[in-house]
Amino acid sequence: MPTAPNDLTATELARLLQRRELRAEEVARAHLERIQARESLIGAWTYLDADRVLREAQVLDAGPVRGPLHGLPIGVKDIIGTFDMPTEYGSPIYKGHRPAWDAACVAAIRAAGGLILGKTVTTEFATSHPGRTANPHNPRHTPGGSSSGSAAAVADRMVPLALGSQTGGSVIRPASFCGIVGYKPTFGLINRHGVKPLSESLDTVGVMARSVGDAALLAAAVTGRPALQDLSETMSWRIGVWRTYEWGQAQAETIAAVEGAARRLAAAGARVSEAAMPERFEQADSAHHEIEHFELARALAFEMQWHRESLTPGLRARLEHGQACPPELYDAKLAVAEACRHALDEVFGQYDVLLAAAATGEAPLGLATTGKAAFNRTWTLMHVPCISVPAASGPNGLPVGIQVIGRRSDDRKALAAARWIEQILRA
Amino acid sequence: MPTAPNDLTATELARLLQRRELRAEEVARAHLERIQARESLIGAWTYLDADRVLREAQVLDAGPVRGPLHGLPIGVKDIIGTFDMPTEYGSPIYKGHRPAWDAACVAAIRAAGGLILGKTVTTEFATSHPGRTANPHNPRHTPGGSSSGSAAAVADRMVPLALGSQTGGSVIRPASFCGIVGYKPTFGLINRHGVKPLSESLDTVGVMARSVGDAALLAAAVTGRPALQDLSETMSWRIGVWRTYEWGQAQAETIAAVEGAARRLAAAGARVSEAAMPERFEQADSAHHEIEHFELARALAFEMQWHRESLTPGLRARLEHGQACPPELYDAKLAVAEACRHALDEVFGQYDVLLAAAATGEAPLGLATTGKAAFNRTWTLMHVPCISVPAASGPNGLPVGIQVIGRRSDDRKALAAARWIEQILRA
Repeated sequence: MPTAPNDLTATELARLLQRRELRAEEVARAHLERIQARESLIGAWTYLDADRVLREAQVLDAGPVRGPLHGLPIGVKDIIGTFDMPTEYGSPIYKGHRPAWDAACVAAIRAAGGLILGKTVTTEFATSHPGRTANPHNPRHTPGGSSSGSAAAVADRMVPLALGSQTGGSVIRPASFCGIVGYKPTFGLINRHGVKPLSESLDTVGVMARSVGDAALLAAAVTGRPALQDLSETMSWRIGVWRTYEWGQAQAETIAAVEGAARRLAAAGARVSEAAMPERFEQADSAHHEIEHFELARALAFEMQWHRESLTPGLRARLEHGQACPPELYDAKLAVAEACRHALDEVFGQYDVLLAAAATGEAPLGLATTGKAAFNRTWTLMHVPCISVPAASGPNGLPVGIQVIGRRSDDRKALAAARWIEQILRA
Repeated sequence: MPTAPNDLTATELARLLQRRELRAEEVARAHLERIQARESLIGAWTYLDADRVLREAQVLDAGPVRGPLHGLPIGVKDIIGTFDMPTEYGSPIYKGHRPAWDAACVAAIRAAGGLILGKTVTTEFATSHPGRTANPHNPRHTPGGSSSGSAAAVADRMVPLALGSQTGGSVIRPASFCGIVGYKPTFGLINRHGVKPLSESLDTVGVMARSVGDAALLAAAVTGRPALQDLSETMSWRIGVWRTYEWGQAQAETIAAVEGAARRLAAAGARVSEAAMPERFEQADSAHHEIEHFELARALAFEMQWHRESLTPGLRARLEHGQACPPELYDAKLAVAEACRHALDEVFGQYDVLLAAAATGEAPLGLATTGKAAFNRTWTLMHVPCISVPAASGPNGLPVGIQVIGRRSDDRKALAAARWIEQILRA
C-alpha cells in the first residue's frame, strides 16, 4: 500500500506537487479525510470549509505551478488574519469577525502557491485561557498553547505545516508537547502585519512542521529567503548546554532529554560543553513578564474598554497588572532585555548554538491549562531563533522536545544545527 | 471680545475643561464652526460627523471628568483605526472600511476623556500620493505629508491636537510646512496596535500641536507617562548643530532657520557647537530607503495581490522595488542602522539635544507632491525623539521649522529642550 499523502513530509509533498506527480486536490482530500476522522477527538480547527479547500485545490491544479508551496495545505493560527475566512482570536468578542486583509505571512503563502486549509485553535488572544484542542498523543493531555491547534493538527497529520506565533512560549512549548518541530525565528524575520498584536517587543510569527527541513521550507517561502533551506552545513558543531535560571522547574524527563541529547551529540562529534550563564540573565524572566504585560494592556485596551465582560477573569487580571505597571519599571525591563541581548551575542562567540529545555516536561494532564513557558520566555525576549526538536518521551509516553537556540539573525545556521541534531536523535 | 475656544492652546483648554469653566460642547462647537468655515478651502478631514461629536461632548459634560484630555477635541490621521468611524488609509481600496477595534492610541485618548473629532487626510497608505489637503498659510502650497490633514487641521485651529505617524518624515515635515509643533517620539513609545503597518522597523505614532507643551500633554496622556509634561528643566543646554549628509538639499530659508536658531540659542545661554557626524551616517539615508521598501512590500502584499489596479502607479513601483530588494541587502541595511544608533548614543554623551533642519525649505507650491523627507529619514531610522519647532519663514512667507532631536528613550529631556528653544525663538 503506498504512503498516504498526509503521511509524507511537506518537503516530499512539495516535490511531488511541483512535478505534478500528485495533484493538489488529492493532497487536500487526504488531509481533509484525516481531519474528518480525527477532528472530533482533537479539536484543532476553528474554521475549515472542505468544499472551498477542494475548489482552491482544483484551481491550483488547473494553473501553472505558482511557487515553492504550490498545493501544500497549510493551517493558520486564528490570531492571524485571513480576508476570506473568519478570524476570531480565540475570543467570543470576535465571533464571525473577518479582517479586511490577509496577514502578510498569509499573503506570502498564497503568493507561493500554498493552500490555506483553515484556521486553527488559539488560546484567548494567544494568552493563557485554552481552547478545546487535545494532544494527539493522548487527548486527555493538553497540546500546549497558545498555538494549540497548529501544533496538534501538524502532529496528527491533518496538515503538514502550520503557522503559529510566540510571545511567551507559544510555538516551542506546543511543538514539544506534540512531538513535532516548532521554529520561532529571529524577532521580525516573518512580517507581523495582520497578526493581532499582543506585545510589540515580543510577538514573533513561527512555524510548525514534522521535520526541521519542512519548517525551513515554509519559513523560506514566507520570508522570500531560500537560503534558509541550505541545511547541508557539516561542521563540528560547538554546542553550549544552557540550563537557564529556570532549570529548577525542569522535570525528570526534561533533564533526561537535555542531558541525553548532549551526550549523544557529543558522541556524534559535536563539541558540547556547559555554557556559563551571564549573571544578568537571572533578571530576564521577570523582564519578560513586565514587558509582556505592559504592552498587552495597551494592545488590548479597546477590548478592556468595550468588551470587559467577554474577557476571561484570568486575562482581565493580566491586563490590570499591565495597566498598573509603572512606565519607569517597563523602561528598566527593556534595558535589562537589551543588556542581556548584548551579553548573549558574546556567548555566541563561543558556541554555534545553545541546547536548552523546550518545556518543563511532557504535556500535563488535562485541558484546563496549556503548561508553563518557563523555558521559552527568556529566548523570546532575546529575539533569537529557537527550534524545538523531538528528543525523548516522558513517564506517560508523551513526547519531550529539546530546544536549539541560535544567534540572533543567523536563522540559517540554527536550522542547520537543528537538522543535524534531529538526525542524530532520530538515529 | 473673549478668545474663542479654538484659539486657546490645548493646555489652556484642558485646564478650563477640568475645572468645568468650559463645557466640552462649547469647545466642540467652536472647532466645528471653524471647520465649517474653512474645510472647503483646507480639506483636512476624511470623516467628520458634527452631530455625533456634539452628542459625545454632551455625554462628557454630563459625567465626571474622565482624565487629562477630558473634552479636548482631537483629530486622528486616517491610517489609525477607529471602530466607530470609517478608516480608509488614504486608499479607495478601503472606501467605507470600519475596523473591528480602536487603535491602542485612540483607546488611550478615549480613556483619558479625549473626544475624537474625526479622521484626517493621509496620503495613500501614508506613503507618497497626496490627498486633497491644502496648506492653511497658503492653500496653493502643500501642507506636507503624509500626516497632511492632522498638520493642516491643527495649524488652522480646527482642532488643538491631532495624531499623525511617521515612517519617513510624515510628522516633522508637515509640522514644519504648517508652522506647528510636530513630535515624533522614540520608536515604540506610543503603541502601534491598530495603525496600518507599513514598515515595522520605522513606523512611529506622533503628535501634532501648536506648542511643545500641548504636544507633551497629548503624548503624556496617550502613553500614561505624566513625566513627559515635566518641561521645567532649566540648564545650560548643550546643543549640537548637526547638518547631516543631506545638508546640500537645504534651501536658503532652512539654512537661515537653523543657523539663526543656533545663534539665538547661544545668545540665550545654550552651549552650541557644530556636531561632528560619524562617517557611517553617510549610509543612513540609503539604509532607510531599502528597509522601508523591503518592509512596505511585505506589509502591502495583500493589496498588491488583490487590489493592484487600485494602487497608484507610484506606490506600485515602490512596492516592486521592495519586492526586488534581496533579503541580504535588507539585512545589511539593518546592520547599518544598528551601528548608526550605537554611534549616535555616543554623540549624546556630548550633547543634550541636536539641532537640525526639519524640511528642505518652506512648503513647495502645488498639491501634487508633499515635499521631501531628506531631513527626516535618518532620524526615523535612529528611533530618536524629534520635535519640529517653528523658527522662521521662507521667501513666500510660509513657515519654516527647525528640528530638535533627543537621545533615544529620553523624550522628556528632548521635549524640555524643545520647549526652551520654542520660548527663545518666539521671544
